[in-house]
Amino acid sequence: MSQYVYGKNVVSSMLKDRREILTLYLLEGRKDIETVSLAKSQNIRIKYVSKAELDRLVSGNHQGYVAEVREYKTYTIEEITDSIPEGKLPLIVALDSLQDPHNLGAILRTMSCVGGDGVIIEKNRSVSLNGTVAKVSVGAIDKVKVAQVTNLAQTLRKLKDMGYWVIGTDVNQAQDYRRIRYDMPVVLVIGAEGTGMRRLIGETCDLKVKLPMEGDIGSLNASVACGILLYQIYSRRFPL
Amino acid sequence: MSQYVYGKNVVSSMLKDRREILTLYLLEGRKDIETVSLAKSQNIRIKYVSKAELDRLVSGNHQGYVAEVREYKTYTIEEITDSIPEGKLPLIVALDSLQDPHNLGAILRTMSCVGGDGVIIEKNRSVSLNGTVAKVSVGAIDKVKVAQVTNLAQTLRKLKDMGYWVIGTDVNQAQDYRRIRYDMPVVLVIGAEGTGMRRLIGETCDLKVKLPMEGDIGSLNASVACGILLYQIYSRRFPL
Repeated sequence: MSQYVYGKNVVSSMLKDRREILTLYLLEGRKDIETVSLAKSQNIRIKYVSKAELDRLVSGNHQGYVAEVREYKTYTIEEITDSIPEGKLPLIVALDSLQDPHNLGAILRTMSCVGGDGVIIEKNRSVSLNGTVAKVSVGAIDKVKVAQVTNLAQTLRKLKDMGYWVIGTDVNQAQDYRRIRYDMPVVLVIGAEGTGMRRLIGETCDLKVKLPMEGDIGSLNASVACGILLYQIYSRRFPL
Repeated sequence: MSQYVYGKNVVSSMLKDRREILTLYLLEGRKDIETVSLAKSQNIRIKYVSKAELDRLVSGNHQGYVAEVREYKTYTIEEITDSIPEGKLPLIVALDSLQDPHNLGAILRTMSCVGGDGVIIEKNRSVSLNGTVAKVSVGAIDKVKVAQVTNLAQTLRKLKDMGYWVIGTDVNQAQDYRRIRYDMPVVLVIGAEGTGMRRLIGETCDLKVKLPMEGDIGSLNASVACGILLYQIYSRRFPL
């Protein structure tokens, strides 16, 4: 199974990091000596194709650069939890029905920056790992472990049995996010854009937090909300 | 001057809020009685056009709904500063060469949620207000005042003369963002995706803050970083 990632910077940094590329598609007529020589030195097959062909491969702004790569590696929950060093307070994010690849990419990026241990997404309900996610994550897609599970509620219950606290985000019946100490193994649950957590997932939570809000918009972008909460957790665990 | 916004939810909420729409473009053959009757009750002109025609009007996922609207209203710096109620600590965000409409939309949304007073963007250097920004902002584009200035450095110097503190974000020569009290009028400067603040803008800053970082990605998505900083400022000003 393979898939496509795109964009000049993404392709260029993959080449510099010597990451596996099955085929490199470049816009015909494009003269980019650095990229081509890097690819040739790694024996990567290069195909020059039309803009229409590149547009067929990916739907985003490819800038004339598309790389065919293997599907992104995912992990089991146990592979994530077992890989957490002893003495480190675990930090996992679970995404309930998140749809926007920009949000998933930005959340992976933030997780990498706070030293998070893994991200859980639900198969068939959430956006999955793709080229847009990779691009927005600026490389975090290869650094933060992602588990794709079939039943998120069941997975959260399993993590609770392992000693994790499941902390949901909600506007109702929730505490101010600054009231919690976060000094326990945490699974932070982020709800879908627009609709929030499903009821079933909300019922699984040990506690719920909310961000204070002015005005009448009433909620933040999912990756922004996740970033604020992750930095609050980080800040509580590693105070000044 | 007019421009186009798009998406089923955006168009639907504009109709419900009775916002001015010059022409409503719907995909030919689309039967959406609720939308059509709402539009007719407000005497909005409806045009049924082909998918190709809608694609020509806007470049995003329009879902068959495009509304022609007047250009988004912008404000002068003085209109922003004069509108801040006496006794309120001002909070302005300045964007240095931000390119991504998703980031601008998410920043407007966060600014609305923290009761921010305005956002400054530089003409010709930053993304401007458009349909994607409106959609991502979920309405905040109409609630948060935006100023488009020709010279950001000059504008920042003017704000400094008015008593504002210009706080930049940087990874070098910067203090941990948690060290500042933010109990003064603040202009928070967010740099461009990838390259950060320009040197000239950096030199205008009264102080620079950074977020602690693990791993080797080294920076956050611009709207996520902005959100974390804005909530830190909010939290210092309105502690638990």
